[in-house]
Amino acid sequence: MQTLFVELGERRYPIFIGSDLNPAELLAPYIKGKQVMIVTNDTVKPLYLNHYLDAVQSLGKSVATCVLPDGEKYKNIQHLNLIFDALLEAGFNRDCTVLALGGGVIGDMAGFASACFQRGVYFIQIPTTLLSQVDSSVGGKTGINHPLGKNMIGAFKQPEVVMADMSQLKTLPERELSAGLAEVIKYAFLGDVEFLHWLEQNMDGLVARDPLLLAEAVYRSCAHKARIVANDEKEQGERALLNLGHTFGHAIESYMGYGVWLHGEAVATGMVMAADLSHRMGWISAEDLERTKKILQRAHLPVACPKIPIDEFLAYMSHDKKVLNGQLRLVLLKKLGQAIITKDFDIELMKQAILANQLSA
Amino acid sequence: MQTLFVELGERRYPIFIGSDLNPAELLAPYIKGKQVMIVTNDTVKPLYLNHYLDAVQSLGKSVATCVLPDGEKYKNIQHLNLIFDALLEAGFNRDCTVLALGGGVIGDMAGFASACFQRGVYFIQIPTTLLSQVDSSVGGKTGINHPLGKNMIGAFKQPEVVMADMSQLKTLPERELSAGLAEVIKYAFLGDVEFLHWLEQNMDGLVARDPLLLAEAVYRSCAHKARIVANDEKEQGERALLNLGHTFGHAIESYMGYGVWLHGEAVATGMVMAADLSHRMGWISAEDLERTKKILQRAHLPVACPKIPIDEFLAYMSHDKKVLNGQLRLVLLKKLGQAIITKDFDIELMKQAILANQLSA
Repeated sequence: MQTLFVELGERRYPIFIGSDLNPAELLAPYIKGKQVMIVTNDTVKPLYLNHYLDAVQSLGKSVATCVLPDGEKYKNIQHLNLIFDALLEAGFNRDCTVLALGGGVIGDMAGFASACFQRGVYFIQIPTTLLSQVDSSVGGKTGINHPLGKNMIGAFKQPEVVMADMSQLKTLPERELSAGLAEVIKYAFLGDVEFLHWLEQNMDGLVARDPLLLAEAVYRSCAHKARIVANDEKEQGERALLNLGHTFGHAIESYMGYGVWLHGEAVATGMVMAADLSHRMGWISAEDLERTKKILQRAHLPVACPKIPIDEFLAYMSHDKKVLNGQLRLVLLKKLGQAIITKDFDIELMKQAILANQLSA
Repeated sequence: MQTLFVELGERRYPIFIGSDLNPAELLAPYIKGKQVMIVTNDTVKPLYLNHYLDAVQSLGKSVATCVLPDGEKYKNIQHLNLIFDALLEAGFNRDCTVLALGGGVIGDMAGFASACFQRGVYFIQIPTTLLSQVDSSVGGKTGINHPLGKNMIGAFKQPEVVMADMSQLKTLPERELSAGLAEVIKYAFLGDVEFLHWLEQNMDGLVARDPLLLAEAVYRSCAHKARIVANDEKEQGERALLNLGHTFGHAIESYMGYGVWLHGEAVATGMVMAADLSHRMGWISAEDLERTKKILQRAHLPVACPKIPIDEFLAYMSHDKKVLNGQLRLVLLKKLGQAIITKDFDIELMKQAILANQLSA
């Protein structure tokens, strides 16, 4: 097992990364109060809930469970309220711990509920998908969607501890594994060319779900994100680098209809567009661009999107949250392993980069 | 005009207290971003909304309005969501300011919405009731009720600035003025016997709504609360002193049905019960207890509640949020002007103190 500390002053917390981890032993120091609410979904429940129920009960805690339906479409205020209902019906007071057992949606909702219940209770995260292990484990972003926008309502809430168990990735659907790998690859592109090299050497093993390789990939990804978040907890600057591929990807997701493409799939194609524009701007070479596509393809990710009229594509991009005062900012690559945030790019070259990475009709 | 700073490090903010204040001039430095959402209710709207709309527009800001129905019963997740709807329908991004124009309910809801919208935007508070001027202006507690409990869901959110204009108290119903005075008197009891003396000298003028006296009472109350909150922002200790009268009052409010007694009215009688128990414990004299009742009566506040069976009263008290691990803690008076938080009190004496301050059937 490896342990990584996210350095946030008095909100510093550890991430435990390994296989077949022992939850009772590892979580014991971090469960605060006598009451624990496990929030999970109906997909994860039959697989892993009892394992954690037993562990928490063995620590002498009183445990309740809130099982939400599985899916991003339930990440809304109505289903958030079901967590509050469960907490209050079980008589929880402010001295309790909310434990998220599931992917990003469960982590976002349980985390937000823990931030708001009694104006803040303790929170523990057990991410069960690769995407949530490398993305939601670090950064403290929690929240829900609104019919008019994703993640529009939420809070920054740091957990007491995160436990990422690679053995739980065995049951992950293949597309979701790939979607998680998209975010892993993102960390390499935006700040660590050595990690890109490592991924190129080990991608086949990762796709085959070798637990030691997965653990190493999760560790490196979390370490990278943790370093950025420690410098910029509330996303005033550097943290925006993590949005590499996201503004293009957001347009693809929106156009396709949420849930048709997974977020990681859209980000993968978005990263290709960002790399393509970076190439057209003269910052990275044609070989670098090919290398970008190649590693994504080896992770079974799409590197082009269906044909989307360019005006619609641009309109969706401009609805992205990263637009500041009407000014589109993009995360681009100055070189492989070094991303920058910039509003100084050629709009015509951007259109070319988008069109070049769409499938012909 | 007097200015009081609430000292919370980088979240330090001023409270402007006076009459016929100029909002455009005073708010200009504190409105962040180009978009301002004024949240108010249908009672305050016809009285004061245009005044602030004009002021904000004169600063070149784009303004939208969200008008909620007036009343504590609307302080719920459904009506909170109307604020998010308004923000997103008006196309607000994270660089905006939410301005609460109203009493405690509006402040709590708009403040909580500002804490959650885009994971936190700027917040300005213009409290229009005496209670919200002395209570909600300081401390950053925001939130909503749940069918199973008051203020169960919320956030700590500090405003950029608070503007308390005494001239707006002219339109306040008499019972609400008295309810505000209950909280003013509370500050004197719990930590400032000199202020109690001042109130005894000036209560007639306060009840007659003399704006200079009201401003002084608001200033002293806010200063007192600000000092406590600066020491204990997240209510780990000293801040619980502010709950003087609240545990007893909570039982009265709950038994009567929320809204039948105003919160301040219940707190007034609750303070009499706390003082009575403090007297029975031998801490304050019979004269001190009479002095307690007298000043509350002069503010037209109830000093006794209807007959409530003692078992029911105790059951409601034990449901109070201040119960920690099943242990009831009370705020009592070691002497007039000096409150303490204690679990060491005689339960029989407490029953006597409750029964002694109920009206005969």
